Amino acid sequence: MRLLGSMKVEDNKLSIGGVDVATLAKEYGTPLYIIDQEELEDKCRLFKENFSHPDLRGEVAYASKAFLTVGMAQLINKEGLSIDVVSGGELYTVHKAGFPMDRVYFHGNNKTLEELELAIRLKCGNIIIDNRHEAKILGELLEKHDYKMNVFLRVNPGISAETHDYIKTTTDDSKFGESIFQEDIYQILRDIKVQDYMNFKGLHCHIGSQIFEEESFLRAVDEMLYFYQLVKNELDIEFESINLGGGFGVYYAEGDRPIDLGPFLQRMIDYIYQGSRRRELTIRHVLIEPGRSIISNAGSTLYTVGGTKETYSGKKYIFIDGGMSDNPRPALYQAKYEAIIANKAEEAPDTLYTVAGKLCESGDVLIEDIKLPRAEAGDLLLISSTGAYTFSMFSNYNRVLRPAVALVKGGSPRLMVRRQTYEDLVSLDEELI
Amino acid sequence: MRLLGSMKVEDNKLSIGGVDVATLAKEYGTPLYIIDQEELEDKCRLFKENFSHPDLRGEVAYASKAFLTVGMAQLINKEGLSIDVVSGGELYTVHKAGFPMDRVYFHGNNKTLEELELAIRLKCGNIIIDNRHEAKILGELLEKHDYKMNVFLRVNPGISAETHDYIKTTTDDSKFGESIFQEDIYQILRDIKVQDYMNFKGLHCHIGSQIFEEESFLRAVDEMLYFYQLVKNELDIEFESINLGGGFGVYYAEGDRPIDLGPFLQRMIDYIYQGSRRRELTIRHVLIEPGRSIISNAGSTLYTVGGTKETYSGKKYIFIDGGMSDNPRPALYQAKYEAIIANKAEEAPDTLYTVAGKLCESGDVLIEDIKLPRAEAGDLLLISSTGAYTFSMFSNYNRVLRPAVALVKGGSPRLMVRRQTYEDLVSLDEELI
Repeated sequence: MRLLGSMKVEDNKLSIGGVDVATLAKEYGTPLYIIDQEELEDKCRLFKENFSHPDLRGEVAYASKAFLTVGMAQLINKEGLSIDVVSGGELYTVHKAGFPMDRVYFHGNNKTLEELELAIRLKCGNIIIDNRHEAKILGELLEKHDYKMNVFLRVNPGISAETHDYIKTTTDDSKFGESIFQEDIYQILRDIKVQDYMNFKGLHCHIGSQIFEEESFLRAVDEMLYFYQLVKNELDIEFESINLGGGFGVYYAEGDRPIDLGPFLQRMIDYIYQGSRRRELTIRHVLIEPGRSIISNAGSTLYTVGGTKETYSGKKYIFIDGGMSDNPRPALYQAKYEAIIANKAEEAPDTLYTVAGKLCESGDVLIEDIKLPRAEAGDLLLISSTGAYTFSMFSNYNRVLRPAVALVKGGSPRLMVRRQTYEDLVSLDEELI
Repeated sequence: MRLLGSMKVEDNKLSIGGVDVATLAKEYGTPLYIIDQEELEDKCRLFKENFSHPDLRGEVAYASKAFLTVGMAQLINKEGLSIDVVSGGELYTVHKAGFPMDRVYFHGNNKTLEELELAIRLKCGNIIIDNRHEAKILGELLEKHDYKMNVFLRVNPGISAETHDYIKTTTDDSKFGESIFQEDIYQILRDIKVQDYMNFKGLHCHIGSQIFEEESFLRAVDEMLYFYQLVKNELDIEFESINLGGGFGVYYAEGDRPIDLGPFLQRMIDYIYQGSRRRELTIRHVLIEPGRSIISNAGSTLYTVGGTKETYSGKKYIFIDGGMSDNPRPALYQAKYEAIIANKAEEAPDTLYTVAGKLCESGDVLIEDIKLPRAEAGDLLLISSTGAYTFSMFSNYNRVLRPAVALVKGGSPRLMVRRQTYEDLVSLDEELI
């Protein structure tokens, strides 16, 4: 397993943030989500420092759907990043965390009336309108509540990056946004522009997730700037801002080659600046919305090995005390991961294993074919790069309990989310007899 | 959409259990899981009445991982069924419901020590041991706590039924059970048989899920009885019980042809009886464990339509206020469903739609290509046959709230599970600043 962030191996043991993970297992139990605070902060700073330009205001909004808790929103705020939310629940969470609402960007293809009213009540600063229908409803609500909001319109530039089908978002039949090729696209823009209670900042696009090709992002910039120019010529509308979404790929397992973000972010913002000048546009503010690329490598999941099994066909299983409930990505996207036996961190990985969870379902396998040292009951297995879309997609399938989340830095751990209890599990159930 | 259970269409409106679903939406909000109590009870009785035999005790254990709440366990108990659980959480839930513990069967490929101790503390009557390693640990725990338990061993007869890869469970490299072809299988059986604190009742197998071919089940019976005979000859062990698991397929959408359960269950139990006599076995007790086939058709999910969208490529979307969070089966298994616009139940389905959820993910589509009447914001869309593996697999992905569950019968609704609130969502989150 590639060591990520502050991970260290010493005396055959794995530590993160200066804490032996065995100590974490003892203190918080397993399964356990672990967040490496230093790695998280490094990524926030990498984005903030490099996505900047002398003549353009660069703004980085963390896409919180990747991983959000009250504490996480507070860490993101401390780093000076903005935040992108996609539901009333995420909005409520960042509000609860005391996140400045003028740096909150509210997304979603089907925000409910109740969610839009919540956004107004909590004084959410920015909404990314998905479509004409939402523009109309939001306009009426804003007028009713006498509240003015910054708005973006999500558009679909018809670019598709190479990635898994499910997380490809910008094709001509995407559920998100309005196509820039649509006949009445100018009418939609005009209708938003004339609204008294909307400050129409610009357009948003998002070309997909887990993207490894720099060119995909630059092509999106080209398309968007070209469209900005058309809008300027046709409607005499000049936007101040442009929001290019997220999608920066991360390292999960061998073969993944993420973009070198530092130089690329500098190149990207300058590319926007140059393109904008060449087209004589007045863009002064550029947004990006990384989620996975901020939190994935900072997160790990720690499990206790319950036992091993060799099947009649010769397949060797390691059974862990979690599974598709705490990480559905292998079942959903055939996602690949790396792992280490944390208490045998320097031993030779000489046995080919399949890492299976404890859930009653054949698909509950987290890693197929991984070489590890010989495992036994009581070992601690750690899967790396699980910060994004694991805790946030957790389900109580099989009525297993949601693990705790521990934050580690400088040799000491803190609890970020408490572990569920059996009482929590039945707390909303009604007796019927 | 095929009307299931007590569903009725009158005056252009859909009702379930004598309650107009629009009334349910008003009372409990949407999304809403609806359970048709009569349909549930009919299925329980269908299994109980038909899986019986003059010379064999038939026992039906509801596989609760399909759908479990405290109230559900109480309904199952009222119908006289037994119950199958797969975790400490399910065990705790049925205990909380006052379910008689002697009719509880505890499964799982990797039960933790804590779960096994909970089973002993709650006086769980029966454990299905997955493998030799578990047999050893359980034996030690039972002796320590001076508690005697009925046990089964899960075996893998190497039969695979035609179904989705993820829910196929009995192949030679399955994570479940011990293969009957294993060299040391007799030693494993002998080791369990000699344990003082275990009452070794018999063997368990489960050949898969959502199976439509009667022959698959009968082939499993043949294999298991053949193996029982080998065990009798080799070890002089005669088992009292046999547990054949579940897997009976249900109707989700056009093309699904479930087995006619009444006659088949009678045929199946008699087939076991005849086979057992022919092989001179002393089996007196047969168990099956249906889950999906008891609850799937009784459940529906009701959504409010937020709006529609026609993309540049001509695709027409209906946006609903739920999605892959409350029903991950389309994303996980490419599962098919039917739907109806409940307030336009008699209108001609003349428009081809894709039903997409509100989550920020392209894969959040519940139904591709379904003909429905022209939809608009405020319509109520109901998806049928969602009783199994939807609520139980719910995730707070995107921090959406878990919907309520309403039980309907005889014209009146009852709350089975309360809807989550935003406060519930952050209740385990720690502040970090």
